[in-house]
Amino acid sequence: MAILRIEGAEIITMAGEVRVESGWTLEAVDGAISYVGPADELQPAGEPDELIDGSGCLLLPGLINAHTHAAMTLFRGAADDMPLDPWLREKIWPVEARLSEDDIYWGTMLGIAEMVRAGVTCFNDMYHQPRVGTRAAEDAGMRMCPSGVLLGILPTAEDMLADAIEFTREYAGREDCCIHPMLAPHAPYTCPREMLERVIAAALDLGVPIHIHLAETDENVRWAMANYGRRPVQAMDEVGLFDAQVLAAHCVHLDAWDIEIVTERAVGVAHCPGSNLKLASGMAPAHALLQAGALVGLGTDGCGSNNNLDLLEEARLAALIAKVREDDPTAVAAGAALRMATIGGAHALHLGETIGSLEAGKRCDCILVDLQAPHLQPHHSLVSHLVYAAQPGDVCTTIVDGRVLMRDRELLTIDLDETIARVSESAARLFD
Amino acid sequence: MAILRIEGAEIITMAGEVRVESGWTLEAVDGAISYVGPADELQPAGEPDELIDGSGCLLLPGLINAHTHAAMTLFRGAADDMPLDPWLREKIWPVEARLSEDDIYWGTMLGIAEMVRAGVTCFNDMYHQPRVGTRAAEDAGMRMCPSGVLLGILPTAEDMLADAIEFTREYAGREDCCIHPMLAPHAPYTCPREMLERVIAAALDLGVPIHIHLAETDENVRWAMANYGRRPVQAMDEVGLFDAQVLAAHCVHLDAWDIEIVTERAVGVAHCPGSNLKLASGMAPAHALLQAGALVGLGTDGCGSNNNLDLLEEARLAALIAKVREDDPTAVAAGAALRMATIGGAHALHLGETIGSLEAGKRCDCILVDLQAPHLQPHHSLVSHLVYAAQPGDVCTTIVDGRVLMRDRELLTIDLDETIARVSESAARLFD
Repeated sequence: MAILRIEGAEIITMAGEVRVESGWTLEAVDGAISYVGPADELQPAGEPDELIDGSGCLLLPGLINAHTHAAMTLFRGAADDMPLDPWLREKIWPVEARLSEDDIYWGTMLGIAEMVRAGVTCFNDMYHQPRVGTRAAEDAGMRMCPSGVLLGILPTAEDMLADAIEFTREYAGREDCCIHPMLAPHAPYTCPREMLERVIAAALDLGVPIHIHLAETDENVRWAMANYGRRPVQAMDEVGLFDAQVLAAHCVHLDAWDIEIVTERAVGVAHCPGSNLKLASGMAPAHALLQAGALVGLGTDGCGSNNNLDLLEEARLAALIAKVREDDPTAVAAGAALRMATIGGAHALHLGETIGSLEAGKRCDCILVDLQAPHLQPHHSLVSHLVYAAQPGDVCTTIVDGRVLMRDRELLTIDLDETIARVSESAARLFD
Repeated sequence: MAILRIEGAEIITMAGEVRVESGWTLEAVDGAISYVGPADELQPAGEPDELIDGSGCLLLPGLINAHTHAAMTLFRGAADDMPLDPWLREKIWPVEARLSEDDIYWGTMLGIAEMVRAGVTCFNDMYHQPRVGTRAAEDAGMRMCPSGVLLGILPTAEDMLADAIEFTREYAGREDCCIHPMLAPHAPYTCPREMLERVIAAALDLGVPIHIHLAETDENVRWAMANYGRRPVQAMDEVGLFDAQVLAAHCVHLDAWDIEIVTERAVGVAHCPGSNLKLASGMAPAHALLQAGALVGLGTDGCGSNNNLDLLEEARLAALIAKVREDDPTAVAAGAALRMATIGGAHALHLGETIGSLEAGKRCDCILVDLQAPHLQPHHSLVSHLVYAAQPGDVCTTIVDGRVLMRDRELLTIDLDETIARVSESAARLFD
């Protein structure tokens, strides 16, 4: 029995109302939270194997990156300030066609290192060769929702689908690891209806969610109107996609009916404000989605279009752009943004029973944020500071499933020097 | 004769085209840059008193915060997600009326500490009791453009103006310090025409620029139409404001004619994207201003409405929101954003001859950014990384006027513990 105890921190549990508790202690046994509450009411499970002094820190659930392509750290800064189509066709796809397993492994590992340092404890990934990225996550001790991207329009589509189903079957339903697989038809415009229907059947059979890009651009809407006679969300509803659990990335272009469908069918939404701004895709109706009661998390998207994996930045952007989009400075307040970054992301990934808040029974994914930096002074509101003022560098400790992955800014499970060296080699070769 | 030399860094000078030079050295004598160029062509001025090894780092001009109210760190997180008017009337002004000199001194010092840590080497400040904030800047060795805010609608307006002119006269034209004063009529809607005319005359007499809030909100436009029969920029042109040098903060609501006036009259613009988003003021036409050739810098605004003093974040926001505003992913590319954060800001403050780029003859305001962090890998484009991926915590060394204010993240001229303690005391008392 392994006991982890964190004492002395201010705590935001994200269970219920967003508020700060003082004088509380958290205890976890074998990776599961056993107690969160007043220190003097703790009935210790035993002597802690790991005792963390959280004085001067804020303890909160780990941040959840609900949509990314982690291996794309390889592409960071390789091509910016371009329209989406030539960016993909000229810069990204030709290089992706040449990626080796090592490239994907180390690119993913670099992404994981960056995320652990930024307080992310779970990421939802869609990429090629999902076994490789998953191996990086398992080696680092990171929680991951992996999925192999399915491009139904390619000649290799049948092989991709068979392999993705086989990969998913290996991990589906396992409770002995931090890997939660999904099936990932890339998008309606790259996956014919017949393939979508097979993916839906497989997802229902395996009991895993579907991860898809949806309604990201105006062009996506035009394509769906031309090919389904309906907007993307309505088209996917008609296809039966939402009979399965779904995590839909982006959802920038939704009308009122789309929002109603997404909410009623409990579709998880990964709001990716940074990527949507950078690619000029638009500003998603996050405020309206939250008002409707939809399951909304935050995603960084890949480093090709962001260019970092900083989820605090996404929370800040979500809060900031909602205000100007709605012409209302009260839209998406700090607490709402923090909710999206944590428990909202957990629900969007259909992992709301497992992670996303600090409550007895959930897995122990949590972070400590150092409150001493000048940019976090004075301490009027710690929730506001997290969303509007904090930096990834303020995260000092990151814990996944009760295991400390970073302590006092030191990565304990990742060899950062080797990772950077290997990624630099890959980048030099790929972009030669 | 004090000699500072920086060797081994990658260098972006921001003189001309934005590009990275390798194998260059910078030398400064008595705070003025004497050489920037290939290491092997340096003719040393003598043995350096301070020799900095920049290996693994990027050297660039210090960032310029073209609009802030530094002492408002006191208000960080005290009231968020509110409309501007009740925020000012209920939360800010009642507390500001009770600020002591100590509050302003330590609030400003906290802001300076945060800015030095974020690579800012010059800030343009508008606040009450400018002598107090200026004392903090001088104590810290920071470059500052101070101005005492003039609220012409208050009964104390005459005293404010007389005092501001006296303060400005003490510093105007001095070349022995890093203080560059301005006169600061708060905004057209708070300063009657007659007062503006006296400020213009004083600015021309003293040879200092004018710092003013301009066209920040829709309401500002409506007010100017009602009171001058013209939009804010055109109203101020008619009043003769632009006969003086001007730094206009915000400039969110400009039409094509406004942009032409701002450009032709060489009005400096402080684009403050974070504050404009948070208060739902709108998105300024930064792309159009840059295309027209206007002098555009970046400002954080005060911590009441941002809530940090992170100019890298403003550069990123400026690049991101321009793309969605213009529906064009090529608008405000990384190089253009970095220009606004450095040489653009210098020109906007009418200090383009003194700071903003690394060129022989200019004052030595520069920063070193550590390139080793995982979120800055691989090194495809350092310009892109600065704007789209870097964090304030990546700045390792900050130099103002040839003096090292921070070295390897250690503040050398500011007692951070005392600053935080004093600000915490002030905040507790003011918001009791």
